[in-house]
Amino acid sequence: MALIVQKYGGTSVGSTDRIRNVAKRVARWKAQGHDIVVVPSAMSGETNRLIALAKEISPQPDPRELDVVASTGEQVTIGLLSMALQEEGLKAKSYTGPQVRVLTDSTFTKARILSIDDERLRRDLQAGYVVVVAGFQGADEAGNITTLGRGGSDTSAVALAAALKADECQIYTDVDGVYTTDPRVEPEARKLNSITFEEMLEMASLGSKVLQIRSVEFAGKYKVKLRVLSSFQDEGEGTLITVEEKNPMEQPIISGIAFNRDEAKVTILGVPDRPGIACQILEAVAEANIDVDIIIQNISHDGTTDFSFTVARVELPKTLRILDTVKGQINAREVLSDNKICKVSAVGVGMRSHPGVASRMFRALAEEGINIQMISTSEIKISVIIDEKYLELAVRVLHKAFGLSESAER
Amino acid sequence: MALIVQKYGGTSVGSTDRIRNVAKRVARWKAQGHDIVVVPSAMSGETNRLIALAKEISPQPDPRELDVVASTGEQVTIGLLSMALQEEGLKAKSYTGPQVRVLTDSTFTKARILSIDDERLRRDLQAGYVVVVAGFQGADEAGNITTLGRGGSDTSAVALAAALKADECQIYTDVDGVYTTDPRVEPEARKLNSITFEEMLEMASLGSKVLQIRSVEFAGKYKVKLRVLSSFQDEGEGTLITVEEKNPMEQPIISGIAFNRDEAKVTILGVPDRPGIACQILEAVAEANIDVDIIIQNISHDGTTDFSFTVARVELPKTLRILDTVKGQINAREVLSDNKICKVSAVGVGMRSHPGVASRMFRALAEEGINIQMISTSEIKISVIIDEKYLELAVRVLHKAFGLSESAER
Repeated sequence: MALIVQKYGGTSVGSTDRIRNVAKRVARWKAQGHDIVVVPSAMSGETNRLIALAKEISPQPDPRELDVVASTGEQVTIGLLSMALQEEGLKAKSYTGPQVRVLTDSTFTKARILSIDDERLRRDLQAGYVVVVAGFQGADEAGNITTLGRGGSDTSAVALAAALKADECQIYTDVDGVYTTDPRVEPEARKLNSITFEEMLEMASLGSKVLQIRSVEFAGKYKVKLRVLSSFQDEGEGTLITVEEKNPMEQPIISGIAFNRDEAKVTILGVPDRPGIACQILEAVAEANIDVDIIIQNISHDGTTDFSFTVARVELPKTLRILDTVKGQINAREVLSDNKICKVSAVGVGMRSHPGVASRMFRALAEEGINIQMISTSEIKISVIIDEKYLELAVRVLHKAFGLSESAER
Repeated sequence: MALIVQKYGGTSVGSTDRIRNVAKRVARWKAQGHDIVVVPSAMSGETNRLIALAKEISPQPDPRELDVVASTGEQVTIGLLSMALQEEGLKAKSYTGPQVRVLTDSTFTKARILSIDDERLRRDLQAGYVVVVAGFQGADEAGNITTLGRGGSDTSAVALAAALKADECQIYTDVDGVYTTDPRVEPEARKLNSITFEEMLEMASLGSKVLQIRSVEFAGKYKVKLRVLSSFQDEGEGTLITVEEKNPMEQPIISGIAFNRDEAKVTILGVPDRPGIACQILEAVAEANIDVDIIIQNISHDGTTDFSFTVARVELPKTLRILDTVKGQINAREVLSDNKICKVSAVGVGMRSHPGVASRMFRALAEEGINIQMISTSEIKISVIIDEKYLELAVRVLHKAFGLSESAER
């Protein structure tokens, strides 16, 4: 008998029929003797509908009031799901975030969880209830309603699992696990039985949007056993996201190939190579709330250097306007940009103990005539920026080069 | 400068445009230097949508969970209205019932307000905020979300006005006040400038559904000055519902003619006239949750009497099934029923000091050949049950007989 926190995404509770299916699934787990806490999202489309209403009233709605409105989506689901569980013959009880209470800071629309009072939930679990807690929301010290931002229900579930010291936190979604790469690009992509938190973070930030990054960080920090599962299949173990790395000898070198086609590349040529110059460029960009991804600066020639970085493609025009000003200030020669690029990355904790991963990656790309424009590496990831048109080819080539299709599941 | 509680019904906040209009109206009151607390209902149709969702899941939803779901309607409105007030340049802040806190008993779906903590609201009002409080909802001692039942937002507003000792509680609705009778039946019906609580109670319970009965009782009990106004007109003083009666000499005899066509009549013939018999009949009906309106029992002949009462027309078949059993138990002769009836009532505190009201009423009906089937009277009301086909005629005849059209407004 275990204590399990199950999180169901918006698609999984997108209609009353689907809510009924979730209730049946919970009932099966309960029948096996487990204690269950369920964290549902809002019904799919509901949060967008509520935010659209708010924007009709005010183009930039007051964040406190926006949270009052947006948090109702999850509140509807917890009530409906509790009713559905009762229809399955279970005892069930719902709680909003403020009721639990999930204490957060006061950063409306993207609050952070500070603590969770688990007393009431434990009492209900002991009394045999399935406890249904609204994801995405909490209340600050003064009792104001807060929300955790998009995808915040994942974070709610992980935080509840940590507070309750749950045996496992299961994230039910519309995919059946984490794959070696996107199966729409590489049909031979294989579901991973397990992946480490670090790898998951790299995969998630690279565009495999299975889990919200913050929830993975949270799970890693509090050692919560996290599992991604499909809510539309009854079979399958999903993908377990683990803290422990396996024996390095058993460790595959690369766990997956991630990619992102929504980036654009900017290069400032002839930047005077003096201390503080990178900061001067990036601060101007950051002040405009533009997130920078890869940053590359190479050694200088003749006192100047070339400075490159990537931004989300939609931010390129705004970025170029800012750099036009910066260029004059720092006395740089020219600004170049390219939005026909993409990023492809090989991710794996195994590369720590295996040399030669980078060269194997570059050779595989070279053999297909794919030119590498930029390279960026971290402890467990190698990313390259290449021409957008080579994206699918590069993913398939690397998937094969690192033996991801044919290797045994781990 | 006054403290005013304004309640806006579902139609008044039925769209984002209408919410903007409410904000403009509040801004005008605020500009006159008043402190304003606003209590909006859910957007029209929203509560029905939420209850329908719940019924899709469960034909008889758990009341606690139903309240969790249903209370979200008002929560959306308070957030949207606060945003709209901010767009008008006002400081505004919303509170749910549990946040205030509006403490209720634990009778889910029809809870009663026990107390209201006014501290937070007073602090905000002093700081210049328009305070927006969700109607219809509260929380019990344990923090469970409760709702007050249909029309409960009126009660919320009156209770807030009482707790804050507000100078006036304004109920904005889609009519511009209380009329001497329904203008759709009698085009010469006239808006009343004032009406007493007692009259309003009789008018409301008789089918003039302007205000929820409980809110009127509440207002009377706590001496809250209550005013019914139109949210679609900028002019007009509406109708003031007062505690004080005017000088009896100025008092019109009758304030209005109310009617109800949704009733059915039941008569049990040959009921043995012994103590406890009425109770035996009505208890069986009450146990089936059927509300009885008028009850009439006349003197007995030869040890038996005839016992009549009216119920809502939709409850007639169920009532007859119950009486079929009761008839045998009490040894009555026969059960008769008629659902082609209606009730017409003359209401007015003036009848206390004016004799002859009943006879004037009966004469007016007789002159039109309208036969009276049942009569029931109270301190300030005379009701007759007549054939349904005479409803409009009877209303117009009585409206004229008591001089309601031509008399000066009071």
